[in-house]
Amino acid sequence: MSSPGDILDLISRGDAATRADLARVTGMARSTVAQRVDTLIAYGLVEERETGASTGGRPPRVLRLATERNCVVGVDLGATHCRVALMDIGGTLLADREDPLRITEGPEAVLRHIDERMHELLAQAGRPLAAVKAIGIGVPGPVEFATGRPVNPPIMPGWHEFPIPDYFTSRYDLEVLVDNDVNALALGEVRHGSTAADNLLFVKVGTGIGCGIIAGGRLHRGAQGAAGDIGHIRVPGADTAACRCGNTGCLEAVAGGAALAARLAEAGVPAADGRAVVDLVSSGDPLAVRLVREAGRDIGDVLAGLVNFFNPEAIVVGGVMAAAHEHLLAGVREVIYQRSLPLATHRLTVVPTEAGEAGGALGAGRLAIDHILDPRNIDRALAAHAAGAAPAAR
Amino acid sequence: MSSPGDILDLISRGDAATRADLARVTGMARSTVAQRVDTLIAYGLVEERETGASTGGRPPRVLRLATERNCVVGVDLGATHCRVALMDIGGTLLADREDPLRITEGPEAVLRHIDERMHELLAQAGRPLAAVKAIGIGVPGPVEFATGRPVNPPIMPGWHEFPIPDYFTSRYDLEVLVDNDVNALALGEVRHGSTAADNLLFVKVGTGIGCGIIAGGRLHRGAQGAAGDIGHIRVPGADTAACRCGNTGCLEAVAGGAALAARLAEAGVPAADGRAVVDLVSSGDPLAVRLVREAGRDIGDVLAGLVNFFNPEAIVVGGVMAAAHEHLLAGVREVIYQRSLPLATHRLTVVPTEAGEAGGALGAGRLAIDHILDPRNIDRALAAHAAGAAPAAR
Repeated sequence: MSSPGDILDLISRGDAATRADLARVTGMARSTVAQRVDTLIAYGLVEERETGASTGGRPPRVLRLATERNCVVGVDLGATHCRVALMDIGGTLLADREDPLRITEGPEAVLRHIDERMHELLAQAGRPLAAVKAIGIGVPGPVEFATGRPVNPPIMPGWHEFPIPDYFTSRYDLEVLVDNDVNALALGEVRHGSTAADNLLFVKVGTGIGCGIIAGGRLHRGAQGAAGDIGHIRVPGADTAACRCGNTGCLEAVAGGAALAARLAEAGVPAADGRAVVDLVSSGDPLAVRLVREAGRDIGDVLAGLVNFFNPEAIVVGGVMAAAHEHLLAGVREVIYQRSLPLATHRLTVVPTEAGEAGGALGAGRLAIDHILDPRNIDRALAAHAAGAAPAAR
Repeated sequence: MSSPGDILDLISRGDAATRADLARVTGMARSTVAQRVDTLIAYGLVEERETGASTGGRPPRVLRLATERNCVVGVDLGATHCRVALMDIGGTLLADREDPLRITEGPEAVLRHIDERMHELLAQAGRPLAAVKAIGIGVPGPVEFATGRPVNPPIMPGWHEFPIPDYFTSRYDLEVLVDNDVNALALGEVRHGSTAADNLLFVKVGTGIGCGIIAGGRLHRGAQGAAGDIGHIRVPGADTAACRCGNTGCLEAVAGGAALAARLAEAGVPAADGRAVVDLVSSGDPLAVRLVREAGRDIGDVLAGLVNFFNPEAIVVGGVMAAAHEHLLAGVREVIYQRSLPLATHRLTVVPTEAGEAGGALGAGRLAIDHILDPRNIDRALAAHAAGAAPAAR
């Protein structure tokens, strides 16, 4: 405690704006505070400026995060798109861009694309490459968070165990965090959306179905980082649909965008994927509307159990299928309120995402910011810096 | 930070044993450390003793929790029993006792019983009443944790919204924490059992079925404190059993001890309750064995979904029915390993509880200890103490 990392934490949260504040809040000697602050300034994370307003004598000097010199990049990788966002370390979006990109093109091509976009956005925002301290990347598949390697990701052929961070850390002096896209979306929702909740589920309904979990204000990844994989929970009373995982009755096989598209195609209504289903719903196709509403009920049946188990304040629904949210959420709400316990639902909100298309990239950027500003990581980086070594590449 | 509460935290975790340690670890001036330590000593939570071993000069003085002068009481209330445990603030059990007691006798009679037992245990252990700083109570029903009031507890008639803490705080100068019994069991398991896990589910299978959740090392209570109520999750493919909650197919109505007893009775095998079912299993009754094994599969069907969602390291099964754990756990494991995703199960352990009968009371005591030693609560109590007021009753 009261390490340089803790001092930075107080400054970035706005709990202390001057050296005198820090001495008062921490109870540390003025000389110790000065030493810690000077270290952070030398390292470039904090800057000290004279304020215009003086009350006579020497004008007070105010400490703040050095947002000009410290940025992060947030990346949202989908099956067929890539969004890259440049943010400063205070969380302000500086520039972003989305392109169509097939994740099946493989790690080298996709990571090169991210690399190029990063340079373009930096040029656009007028920031040097050295300002980028970390990159956060959300990918559409399971990831071992500690190493940044995808683990048997079903829709990412060629990515299994690929060490994503190495691509960047071998080229640049920065850190790389890789996480499942729904975790980035959940984090983006609580930090950038209007849903302030300590216990929140972000349910992404796209081709598949996944869930990001905020428990007690923090991302819950579980023991192996596999938490939130709700697409293969068995839907009560839906045992016939075969799933690509080998089981039957999985939520994804019953209510995912791909499953709905297949069912429409079987009925003679051409639909290639979830987006096509949403288009049919928008145009008022009665079968598509009915299937989406039924899918909502099936999702609601699984979520009703999770509401009893987890007791969240909010469920936020995103992903491609959320564009048909009137019908989807109607089904979800219907079953949750019918099946969950009254104590767990009487203040529960079930809403479509507000962060929208940009949510995943902003959440991934937030993952990078939280990592850089974590007091333990600051102290580790400073120790390496002091020892004359380059900051460790995680 | 670096408040008296933080100082106590360092001492109780063993991170600092002397004033010199504290100055080094916190970076605070020696005079500030001395002031904080003296406050804690004056308040009675810390004591300083000379060690025998001297290296010449003044012998070093060591700081430790004042366990002689600070105790807690942990209480486990069941439908038909009451166990009271006296522990010191370091977590050592000093004395305990269990009695048959019907919770339906109502709050006044039950709380009077706890009060009397507390005095008996104190006399037995030779500690004064003033040493008791807090009481933790686990009750078999939903509780609003912040106020300590049960909320429509189905098997506790007369307890709805009864302010349990007031009974004790109006008589004594101590704090009272009331929680659902499964939360106390989960806490008891990670602190007193051999299952060291940051993400753990404690599943209590008795008359009903409930679950205590440890997420990231902390109790997860959810938005309204209702988390873990898995007894009313719908079991896939079991839609006919009517539940007392008004729905059908609830886990409790299919696999709870009362449901199994009723099904045995219907088949002409007399069984009054879950304990009778366990006795029949012990005596090798084939129908009882079959029903318990099926119940295990139904519980496994619900837990399989929760394993995908939560990705725990361990599932611990307790409660009356866990006495038939060979058959119960065989069914649970069978379905979890069949239905959950490989990444989430390959290191998952599913085990019967080790803490045994005493687990609930020890866990409730741990709830009280954690509250007393929480740095924020220490600082609040000291502030009240300094202002000349009696410590606030939560």
